[in-house]
Amino acid sequence: MRSDDFEAWTTLEQRAVERALEEWVPTNSPAGLGEAMRYGVLDGGKRLRPLLVRAASEAVRGHAEAALRAAVAVELIHAYSLVHDDMPCMDNDVLRRGKPTVHVQYGQAQAMLAGDAMQALAFEVLTPDTGTVPPALQARLCALLARSAGHAGMAGGQAIDLASIGVALDEARLRDMHRRKTGALLQASVLMGAACGTPDGRAWSALAEYGATIGLAFQVVDDILDVTQASETLGKTAGKDEHHNKPTYVSLMGLDAARRHALELRDQAHAALARSGLQDAARLALLADKVVDRDS
Amino acid sequence: MRSDDFEAWTTLEQRAVERALEEWVPTNSPAGLGEAMRYGVLDGGKRLRPLLVRAASEAVRGHAEAALRAAVAVELIHAYSLVHDDMPCMDNDVLRRGKPTVHVQYGQAQAMLAGDAMQALAFEVLTPDTGTVPPALQARLCALLARSAGHAGMAGGQAIDLASIGVALDEARLRDMHRRKTGALLQASVLMGAACGTPDGRAWSALAEYGATIGLAFQVVDDILDVTQASETLGKTAGKDEHHNKPTYVSLMGLDAARRHALELRDQAHAALARSGLQDAARLALLADKVVDRDS
Repeated sequence: MRSDDFEAWTTLEQRAVERALEEWVPTNSPAGLGEAMRYGVLDGGKRLRPLLVRAASEAVRGHAEAALRAAVAVELIHAYSLVHDDMPCMDNDVLRRGKPTVHVQYGQAQAMLAGDAMQALAFEVLTPDTGTVPPALQARLCALLARSAGHAGMAGGQAIDLASIGVALDEARLRDMHRRKTGALLQASVLMGAACGTPDGRAWSALAEYGATIGLAFQVVDDILDVTQASETLGKTAGKDEHHNKPTYVSLMGLDAARRHALELRDQAHAALARSGLQDAARLALLADKVVDRDS
Repeated sequence: MRSDDFEAWTTLEQRAVERALEEWVPTNSPAGLGEAMRYGVLDGGKRLRPLLVRAASEAVRGHAEAALRAAVAVELIHAYSLVHDDMPCMDNDVLRRGKPTVHVQYGQAQAMLAGDAMQALAFEVLTPDTGTVPPALQARLCALLARSAGHAGMAGGQAIDLASIGVALDEARLRDMHRRKTGALLQASVLMGAACGTPDGRAWSALAEYGATIGLAFQVVDDILDVTQASETLGKTAGKDEHHNKPTYVSLMGLDAARRHALELRDQAHAALARSGLQDAARLALLADKVVDRDS
């Protein structure tokens, strides 16, 4: 695939997700709740998770509307986790995607409720009553999303993160934390896309490994960017891991080794795709490159 | 139905729900997250919502395992909403069901994460991969639960509540707030139970009305108990609505009229059941009585 084709695809997909979010995140919710939800999720980010869902679905010739709904649902879960994570009792962050965080803009109570309602909305989006998505697929997507977001996945990883401030984790425990905290939802993005089609067992396993590997690569690169980039480039507060005395790949293995590790993980992701037997995995390969070669 | 039969049924059902919660809420989650989740949901409350799910399912001869899962899922949503609602940025409550609230016991960050993970767990419980619940029913239950918990339901009602402190609401607006804040999940309990079977249109509409009516009755009685009962009986802080200058049915219509209104709503709930055409609705009728005639 030519890289300008990939860029054009990325732009189109980002627009489709943005339009769907515009339509499905409520405008008229009571007492400003919809406004806070929209502030927390619209116009923000690179939409990496939605791109993974859609690319994986295309690779298995999956159900297009289901994949769009899955893309929006994972982004809602991701966005709600940021809203809650930024609150004073967690990371106490005031800047996100270059804007004041939701609790700074709307107050802590509204931010908590907006996050809660965004999580529920993810499951609303996955279960339309329009007759356009087969119910068994709806159930499968809910199952994958709930497990990646919950105690064994993202929320569990955040709990480990909380408990690890100032604690020296070894690489195995750091990896376990990130596998849950950011990896679970990234992997679920790939698998939800895959579930929109009917991949065989070999393709499913390969996509699961691809998802796990880029999930880890994403976090390694995040840790690198946290020490090498300025807040303006990141659109969020830089250097906060060190400030909070949190263990990172950079603090554990040093900057150069962390960079090499990210490249190894990218190669592993490519190798998994090669084993998948899927013909249309080029976009997933380019997304792996994008995860590793980014500056924000 | 004899009242001692109903009491025996209630006890059996409460035990079944408690056993299922014991089994499905994780014990071994990372960094104490499972412990905080269990503290927030086990050994607590009258399990009214689970009883409604199960009684409605029995009335339509519904799928028993699906109804048990639905019962646990609604209780998880209810419990997570209490955990978040008690936090300092919301109601700032230190006592719940006679115990310190989750954030007092485990800290605010863990309480927020536990609530988040409890919401996800509700959808995990509804989507087992055991082959024992038809996928279309899983999807239907997720759809009903997500909509009742989200921006148009419970979370929306809480946002109105937040925005209403010290504001004089008329009865229509107070009713709208409660229809969402507590009514939506109570009604969803009835409808999720109903969805476990195949009620006809008349029965579905009647159960929807029954659910909406007892949802409202529940809140009217809550407002009455808040001014008439001591904290020890309630197991939570009494008098807090007045303390927070929140509008209530009692402040709006006076204590005697609120009591008459609760009895009228109970009669409306009975009338809805009579119209349902269902033969086995006796437990639902007794649950309506229980909602109105309670002291905590």
